[in-house]
Amino acid sequence: MPANTQSDHACLIVHGSDKPGIIAALSALIARNQGNIVTFDQYSDDAEGGAYFCRVVFHRPNFAVAVPEIEADLARTLGEEFDLNWSLADRSVPKRMAILASKQDHCLLDLLWRHRRGDLPVSIPMVISNHTTSADDVRSFGVPFFHVPSTPGPDKSESEAKLIELLAGNVDFIVLARYMQILSPEFLDAVGVPVINIHHSFLPAFIGAEPYKKAKQRGVKLIGATSHYVTGDLDEGPIIEQDTIRVTHADSAAELARRGADVERQVLSRAVLWHAEDRVIRHGNHTIVF
Amino acid sequence: MPANTQSDHACLIVHGSDKPGIIAALSALIARNQGNIVTFDQYSDDAEGGAYFCRVVFHRPNFAVAVPEIEADLARTLGEEFDLNWSLADRSVPKRMAILASKQDHCLLDLLWRHRRGDLPVSIPMVISNHTTSADDVRSFGVPFFHVPSTPGPDKSESEAKLIELLAGNVDFIVLARYMQILSPEFLDAVGVPVINIHHSFLPAFIGAEPYKKAKQRGVKLIGATSHYVTGDLDEGPIIEQDTIRVTHADSAAELARRGADVERQVLSRAVLWHAEDRVIRHGNHTIVF
Amino acid sequence: MPANTQSDHACLIVHGSDKPGIIAALSALIARNQGNIVTFDQYSDDAEGGAYFCRVVFHRPNFAVAVPEIEADLARTLGEEFDLNWSLADRSVPKRMAILASKQDHCLLDLLWRHRRGDLPVSIPMVISNHTTSADDVRSFGVPFFHVPSTPGPDKSESEAKLIELLAGNVDFIVLARYMQILSPEFLDAVGVPVINIHHSFLPAFIGAEPYKKAKQRGVKLIGATSHYVTGDLDEGPIIEQDTIRVTHADSAAELARRGADVERQVLSRAVLWHAEDRVIRHGNHTIVF
Amino acid sequence: MPANTQSDHACLIVHGSDKPGIIAALSALIARNQGNIVTFDQYSDDAEGGAYFCRVVFHRPNFAVAVPEIEADLARTLGEEFDLNWSLADRSVPKRMAILASKQDHCLLDLLWRHRRGDLPVSIPMVISNHTTSADDVRSFGVPFFHVPSTPGPDKSESEAKLIELLAGNVDFIVLARYMQILSPEFLDAVGVPVINIHHSFLPAFIGAEPYKKAKQRGVKLIGATSHYVTGDLDEGPIIEQDTIRVTHADSAAELARRGADVERQVLSRAVLWHAEDRVIRHGNHTIVF
Repeated sequence: MPANTQSDHACLIVHGSDKPGIIAALSALIARNQGNIVTFDQYSDDAEGGAYFCRVVFHRPNFAVAVPEIEADLARTLGEEFDLNWSLADRSVPKRMAILASKQDHCLLDLLWRHRRGDLPVSIPMVISNHTTSADDVRSFGVPFFHVPSTPGPDKSESEAKLIELLAGNVDFIVLARYMQILSPEFLDAVGVPVINIHHSFLPAFIGAEPYKKAKQRGVKLIGATSHYVTGDLDEGPIIEQDTIRVTHADSAAELARRGADVERQVLSRAVLWHAEDRVIRHGNHTIVF
Repeated sequence: MPANTQSDHACLIVHGSDKPGIIAALSALIARNQGNIVTFDQYSDDAEGGAYFCRVVFHRPNFAVAVPEIEADLARTLGEEFDLNWSLADRSVPKRMAILASKQDHCLLDLLWRHRRGDLPVSIPMVISNHTTSADDVRSFGVPFFHVPSTPGPDKSESEAKLIELLAGNVDFIVLARYMQILSPEFLDAVGVPVINIHHSFLPAFIGAEPYKKAKQRGVKLIGATSHYVTGDLDEGPIIEQDTIRVTHADSAAELARRGADVERQVLSRAVLWHAEDRVIRHGNHTIVF
Repeated sequence: MPANTQSDHACLIVHGSDKPGIIAALSALIARNQGNIVTFDQYSDDAEGGAYFCRVVFHRPNFAVAVPEIEADLARTLGEEFDLNWSLADRSVPKRMAILASKQDHCLLDLLWRHRRGDLPVSIPMVISNHTTSADDVRSFGVPFFHVPSTPGPDKSESEAKLIELLAGNVDFIVLARYMQILSPEFLDAVGVPVINIHHSFLPAFIGAEPYKKAKQRGVKLIGATSHYVTGDLDEGPIIEQDTIRVTHADSAAELARRGADVERQVLSRAVLWHAEDRVIRHGNHTIVF
Repeated sequence: MPANTQSDHACLIVHGSDKPGIIAALSALIARNQGNIVTFDQYSDDAEGGAYFCRVVFHRPNFAVAVPEIEADLARTLGEEFDLNWSLADRSVPKRMAILASKQDHCLLDLLWRHRRGDLPVSIPMVISNHTTSADDVRSFGVPFFHVPSTPGPDKSESEAKLIELLAGNVDFIVLARYMQILSPEFLDAVGVPVINIHHSFLPAFIGAEPYKKAKQRGVKLIGATSHYVTGDLDEGPIIEQDTIRVTHADSAAELARRGADVERQVLSRAVLWHAEDRVIRHGNHTIVF
């Protein structure tokens, strides 16, 4: 799983109804467009006639120049002949990722640091927080920081309008790095890009607020974290990645939070990496992760 | 964690309200009764005045003879002076464990095999199943097998009465090795010994029937198993042990069940071992596991 | 990962030097032979010109009848045009697995149980042990048991000759389930099928005898197990699967052995399953596991 | 495991030859010095007469004032009567930790972040690096940064002399956060405080340079990290903590290094926390971790 962008490499995602001959057609298409397949993953959820998913990374010299004719070929071959959905991404162009954060900085700083190391194939045009505490840290990474306070009360339309102003058209996906605010369905519609959240429990256990406190009350022996796409239903979106660690009766709720922070940042960073590399395909409320 | 019984060793469990001087009193008591402390574990859930829990294993030559005078000293010192609850177990005497099973045999056979290897410090006076499929396997381990069919319909009083006849007075604890029947509060009262269950999910996620099917539907990336004491509330009793393993989008519900069986038998065997060694103390809906 | 055999399904393994067009040629070949691809995995260890590995499972009605013409097409297309190695397995035919065991029975019984549950797509024509202790257990699973005592001293040619008599031509692979005898290069040559071993350490740590004792001496905080193909170099063959579990200073070497047994049987069962499903390709001293 | 310093709390470590009555004497001592035991852990490596280890945290109002008389009592009771070694630490005083680093900054920054979050009960009087690349990052945490270039060639006495000048008397322990230089026995003697290293493999596998490259060559299915006390023998000191993660044939050596960095910083941070909390007792080449 190389993390960096790659010149003259493309990632093709295909999904739709399975039918015989897709791989043959697809590989022939890439071959006749001077592409050489580097990785090929596919999954169909039933032997025949179910849903089909495919991810192909291929190398093609001067890819940027050839995009229009490759796309025309894809539309003809996969779209018309096979009635499949597809998308083609240029792997030399990093996705633009916005991070929304709040007071807790462990997930935010972890993403910024991984990005600086070259481990995340994204650009970060902005970090937005409803608090100002992380401004200096964020800017020390050379990343713009914007402060958008959360509107008090249940109606978040004012603060969400400010978010939309900053985000719309400027980013390819949004990461909620312990943002702790519920985004309205209207916001999700308006922003029009995938939003990835980290929830500090092993979903579907402990949905909603204060999962570590609930975990302590229930007396569980493991705690976890879940990264998922955000939908209109709180903590119900398609899960990208999860993990757990062992705890004991002696760990207080505060200790669970301290130890859980490590799981959160690891789970979120994997979900972000896989999304950035086009490894995650949404299918209803599920994800296929190649 | 030695698994076998030990001659002339005792396990003392103490719990109650924390107060200064408990350890000093306890260790003096063991010393003046010719005991030598082998392991000592304690936990108090608050700095002062909270709940206090302690487990001491000590060696005492000719322990069996000295039990009455040690118990009198415990009653005087811990009971009267400190108002603590205590129990004293002779570690040369294995606990008597009944196993209740159904068609699925993976947890049942795993316990029988671990017992034969000498890894569980228990005796197994009986296995009871509501099916006959495992009779030969059970008897090949030299363990008596009884068939008690489950009464059809919601009223289980007839089959539970037969279970009580077999179990009452004959066992120290009961293990539900994927027994798949809900035991009534009346049964739990009547049998009067701890009952340990294995649930095939990471509780509190996927309470109730068909957790692997629910896990597949939710699209989780880990599945788990939970061993807990049975109470009147289904899947809500104090958790003893849990674990999880990684799964993917490509695993069917049947595949989750196949792979989860490994986690179930491991989690259950650890819970049973720890219970048999008096390592687990119940405290409300929680457990302290030393 | 379905564990059972599948009628009219074939598994094709391809490996050799990577070159453009392999997938197109391969998928066209399967299509023109009335096959429908069910799973497709590939890996190349370099962008271009490196080693190429591919595993395709396809469904083909009346596969058994079509084998000769499919093999002829493979020889022509993959062999002559692309200079690749290939092998074609009928997934309705389980591989024949022999188990060699000694006194310790945890890995042996675990494999027999999994097989009886339908979790391993193999047949088990024989178990051979250099001790007689497991004879009754093995036969209770309906599996033939043979006793071949190990020749005392370093020269094992006599006992190995007896093993060859039993095994040659009768099995497709051999599993050493804690067999504890070193097999000579001559034996490996003569038997001519893959041999899978389980070593009770995280290789390359603690090669050779008594790894748990060595682990205790070194004071490690994790112990592990490794399943690998056997070669002439002790514990140096290609690794198929490994895993570890956490231990503490309080665990004796005997306790490490007791707890490690769980890791051993899990690691070995996964390696056996993957081998039986043709998921493992050897490449020098490495394995590709699809 | 509370991470912060605690006023009026002390941590007492005791070790030596086990004999009957230690706990009674110890708890009586703490009681007569107005202490109340908060946590109590003990371990003896043999039933009787082996090595004995004990860690007691107790609360004592105005502890700082009482230190001389408590130490006198300890010397009398534990030292003279029982011939045990002991040390008493004031938990309101954080240990002074120096970090030595090189170009790779993941372990260094992780420790600085955890410290700023309040998760490590230490003070950090200095970071020393043989490169200047991390100077700004370190100083942005308010921590002094010193540059001590490594003397070229095998004789490191010049650079080590400079390190000693900075460190001697100013720190309670030293962390090598991927420092990549071998420290001489003379340096270890002169500096006179514990030195904790992080090695990027699961020791004793892959001792020495380039463990990820060696892991790739051997084809392991897990990689790991090990934190240990530094001794004169390279990578042979007492292990404090280890962990592993799963990798595949598709991961390059560079990818192993990228993913292993996460394990390294987690393992090191746990080892540092446990050392700072006096949870780790060295015993020959082993550690007892309470």
